[in-house]
Amino acid sequence: MKKAIVLLSGGLDSATCLAMARDQGYECHTLAFDYGQRHRAELAAAQQLSAQMGAASHRVVQLGMAEIGGSSLLGHDEDLPEAGGEGVPSTYVPARNTVFLSLALGLAEVVDAEAIFIGIHDEDSSGYPDCRPEFLAAFQQLANEATVAGMEGRTIEVLAPLLSMSKAGIIQTGVKLGVDYRLTISCYDADAQGRACGRCDSCVIRRQGFAEAGLVDQTLYA
Amino acid sequence: MKKAIVLLSGGLDSATCLAMARDQGYECHTLAFDYGQRHRAELAAAQQLSAQMGAASHRVVQLGMAEIGGSSLLGHDEDLPEAGGEGVPSTYVPARNTVFLSLALGLAEVVDAEAIFIGIHDEDSSGYPDCRPEFLAAFQQLANEATVAGMEGRTIEVLAPLLSMSKAGIIQTGVKLGVDYRLTISCYDADAQGRACGRCDSCVIRRQGFAEAGLVDQTLYA
Repeated sequence: MKKAIVLLSGGLDSATCLAMARDQGYECHTLAFDYGQRHRAELAAAQQLSAQMGAASHRVVQLGMAEIGGSSLLGHDEDLPEAGGEGVPSTYVPARNTVFLSLALGLAEVVDAEAIFIGIHDEDSSGYPDCRPEFLAAFQQLANEATVAGMEGRTIEVLAPLLSMSKAGIIQTGVKLGVDYRLTISCYDADAQGRACGRCDSCVIRRQGFAEAGLVDQTLYA
Repeated sequence: MKKAIVLLSGGLDSATCLAMARDQGYECHTLAFDYGQRHRAELAAAQQLSAQMGAASHRVVQLGMAEIGGSSLLGHDEDLPEAGGEGVPSTYVPARNTVFLSLALGLAEVVDAEAIFIGIHDEDSSGYPDCRPEFLAAFQQLANEATVAGMEGRTIEVLAPLLSMSKAGIIQTGVKLGVDYRLTISCYDADAQGRACGRCDSCVIRRQGFAEAGLVDQTLYA
């Protein structure tokens, strides 16, 4: 059975990505990161989603990104930006997806996976540079050069099936594949019980997605 | 003053790299990783080297790479390979330089650095895929796409000045620039006092380097 590493944050996008990888016949190995994010409730969500969706393994990698800093997502004091701001918002964690994909690449070498799934998408990326198709193409090229697999001519494919999908389209796809979105957490400021704030960028985009998909949003709000 | 991130493992190569970056007029911010390596003595060496060589800051990022595994460098039980083996040795940590450079890229964004220095070199790389010029070129391309700086047309240069140098050449360069190699640790299996085993791949290459450079090797062996 072909294997894939699936980056699973515990959010709506990555849960859908996991469902799509499974639907494509991959044995899925999920990978989450404990990187000092203020929304730590998503880590419990990731573990629960991985088990409930039948992944073959789940790993949580500790990552001291707070030592590097540079993001309001890594602190607990700074106010989060409200939705609708201009430019790259303060929630951007410098090089986060690059770091996450690099560790996924290492794991792909170890478990002999032929694909990595990441749930980035362009439309709702809030202007993050590492959610763009150009970023993905550059990382694929790097994956080919950075690994023993690549040196031997076996490509580890870096797949972002949500890349050009809308939030509503993602939700509709996930519902068809049986994703239980009540288990997912999108909020940047979820409380310890996993209840969403309803105000941050991520909450607003999620709520709009359910509305546009014509589906009831069962998210628990604080 | 122009700023650079310098990856500083505490070994001979990265210490030389730091000296070269300083010599080129950069304000240097050094970055080390606590990734579960069995040769943890190098972390103390990195801190000491950073201070002694006048870096502007030093950071140690915790990185749970043991959760990913795949290398004899991450375990304490497995025997290390002796020098002169064929193929990619068991000390290869999958995607390690990719992960390290990714975190350096994040830090470069945060401190507004225009360069990243990494002490990889081709000749003595023991066949690691992520010590080759092709790897470096691919990472440069990624750096241009993955960052806000890159989106805005400001390149963060990824520099590997040792890339095509021999170990002897590196040592001669470092000596000219005043590097105190007694403070560096190359051994994969150094003891708690930082004394080298004298037998592993890394020890053998280091010893040969000093011999070829015509210099006395002051390394402390256990």
